[in-house]
Amino acid sequence: MSSEPKIRFGIIGCADISRKVSRAITLAPNAKLSAVASRTLEKATAFATANNFPSEAKIYGSYEALLDDPEIDVVYIPLPTTLHLKWASLAAQKKKHILLEKPVAVCATELDQILAACEANGVQFMDGTMWLHHPRTAKMKEFLHSKDGFGELKTVHSCLTFAADESFHKENIRVKPDLDSLGALGDVGWYCTYSILWAADYEMPKTVIATPGAVISDAGVILACGASLHWGDGKSATFHCSFLTNMTSTITALGTKGTLQVNDLVIPVVEKEASFVVSSNTKVDDLMTSWVPAPSQHVVSTDLPQEVCLIQELSHLVWEVKVNGGQPDLTWASRSRKTQQILDAVKVSIEKGFQTVEIGT
Amino acid sequence: MSSEPKIRFGIIGCADISRKVSRAITLAPNAKLSAVASRTLEKATAFATANNFPSEAKIYGSYEALLDDPEIDVVYIPLPTTLHLKWASLAAQKKKHILLEKPVAVCATELDQILAACEANGVQFMDGTMWLHHPRTAKMKEFLHSKDGFGELKTVHSCLTFAADESFHKENIRVKPDLDSLGALGDVGWYCTYSILWAADYEMPKTVIATPGAVISDAGVILACGASLHWGDGKSATFHCSFLTNMTSTITALGTKGTLQVNDLVIPVVEKEASFVVSSNTKVDDLMTSWVPAPSQHVVSTDLPQEVCLIQELSHLVWEVKVNGGQPDLTWASRSRKTQQILDAVKVSIEKGFQTVEIGT
Repeated sequence: MSSEPKIRFGIIGCADISRKVSRAITLAPNAKLSAVASRTLEKATAFATANNFPSEAKIYGSYEALLDDPEIDVVYIPLPTTLHLKWASLAAQKKKHILLEKPVAVCATELDQILAACEANGVQFMDGTMWLHHPRTAKMKEFLHSKDGFGELKTVHSCLTFAADESFHKENIRVKPDLDSLGALGDVGWYCTYSILWAADYEMPKTVIATPGAVISDAGVILACGASLHWGDGKSATFHCSFLTNMTSTITALGTKGTLQVNDLVIPVVEKEASFVVSSNTKVDDLMTSWVPAPSQHVVSTDLPQEVCLIQELSHLVWEVKVNGGQPDLTWASRSRKTQQILDAVKVSIEKGFQTVEIGT
Repeated sequence: MSSEPKIRFGIIGCADISRKVSRAITLAPNAKLSAVASRTLEKATAFATANNFPSEAKIYGSYEALLDDPEIDVVYIPLPTTLHLKWASLAAQKKKHILLEKPVAVCATELDQILAACEANGVQFMDGTMWLHHPRTAKMKEFLHSKDGFGELKTVHSCLTFAADESFHKENIRVKPDLDSLGALGDVGWYCTYSILWAADYEMPKTVIATPGAVISDAGVILACGASLHWGDGKSATFHCSFLTNMTSTITALGTKGTLQVNDLVIPVVEKEASFVVSSNTKVDDLMTSWVPAPSQHVVSTDLPQEVCLIQELSHLVWEVKVNGGQPDLTWASRSRKTQQILDAVKVSIEKGFQTVEIGT
């Protein structure tokens, strides 16, 4: 609706993912695509043209210039991970609310500096994990919270991989140690770890052990790895992430009474409809030849793609701060930090030859 | 067809699973339910009546008596695992072909004695892993062998669990250390391990590491555990098996070019139709908002349930030996042994505090 208040977004960095986020900002009913910055004006102009920016949107040839624009509320930062500390901190100092691409930092210590800057400046922080905002995710959580249908969570397995092509392996920032030192762990592993935490209601595991056999590139970047996570109450989880196998995006959560299975968690197979499969109190029939009851598939439709839901939710939170004088919602920062902490621990475990690593606080 | 030659089966032990196998023998076109033995004649009689044995079937009050019957070709042995060595060896000595329930032995050393008895007496050996004989399994294998569709296998995850009820935890042989010392590892873990080996074309891993957090009962029996398996070429696999969570039966195999996913591997949800999902060379669309191409589901129908296919296949192999003077097919024994070896290694790893264990030969 044209009468709905709009939060003004600026984007610093014309990464591929910025195209998807630009469209999401355009489609969100309470957000507005207001500016883009690149290191050159030419690149920013080309990006704005290619991505249907409104004619009144501003085009900047430097990130600083965009951050100095008082008519921007939120800055989306898709820059290489090693640049997050500098630019997210500066954005916060300039009183910009922040949408930060994942992995949010090279380590939790750097993230803490970013979050401190956000807190000191009273700005909202959210990372770019889109699937969390799909309405399917809330429906799945209802199932996981159902005492009779799912019971107590015991085990989770999460897997996200894609087969990177030759040019990715040569040029992508995610395989450059100076740009994205966590490699596949920070990229696809971010989603695996976050999904496990999500299933566990963000209760932190006590220990992490990387699975032997992590694949490390000649440049020292993780191309594939996995780990198991262990909680004090006996819950456990495993994940596998990789740039080396066909696209796969699963989560299986096992409870004492039920099972949740999703095979397209991070990006749904189709944009406006996503499904999940649950089974509860499953037995076999008398001769053990079939399941009783059969698992059931639940389809969740959404008019707004998940990344639009993210922009909408973030804009709502920013509106609360900007217009209603509310405090930033720290939920999202806390979840990002927990995810980052686990990634850090997995990395240490790999570096220490797959030893058990206690999760820090 | 009535003209088809029939292999004559005897069953020693009236376990629950014997009911399913009795029906399978009845339904298999080349097999015949010829005898049942229990430790008492009453129990064997009641079993035969309840399971529609033909009127001419023989009822025995001791296992020995059935083994001495010259009109039995194959003996099905569903006895507790600790009794397998004694009864399978004796059956082989009596020149009976053998269908042995899983886990086939308490350890590979005992299995070797059983297999030696089979070899010395020229009898066919097969274990009771039913899903291997479902026509879906061959279709899935075609996909895994497709160079363009699946590429090279890199990782497998397999999971089989069911929520055992109170009476199971009190009384079932699978939680009694003197009857089935491998617990959940030998029961549901058998299938996980076998399915991983199946995906890897029975190439043996070099090492195994049990995942910390295995749940052991007061009696010392494994109720839930997992492990990772590692091959010399970098392939890896993980599995999780448990008596403590809702029924779940998945395998996900990841190749360089494709993914195979099945959510009802061990027992299909319905008896005469089973499906699997594959994706090949999966990309996302230009804005990373959907999968191209979408995964595809393949449905495989079968007139004969998987356990009937097993009986049919075994009967065919026995016919080759009995009538055509052929040699026993050692394929099945070899696969059983590899599975058992891995279970042994996982158990040692658990006992050694989740250390890496080299797989023996």
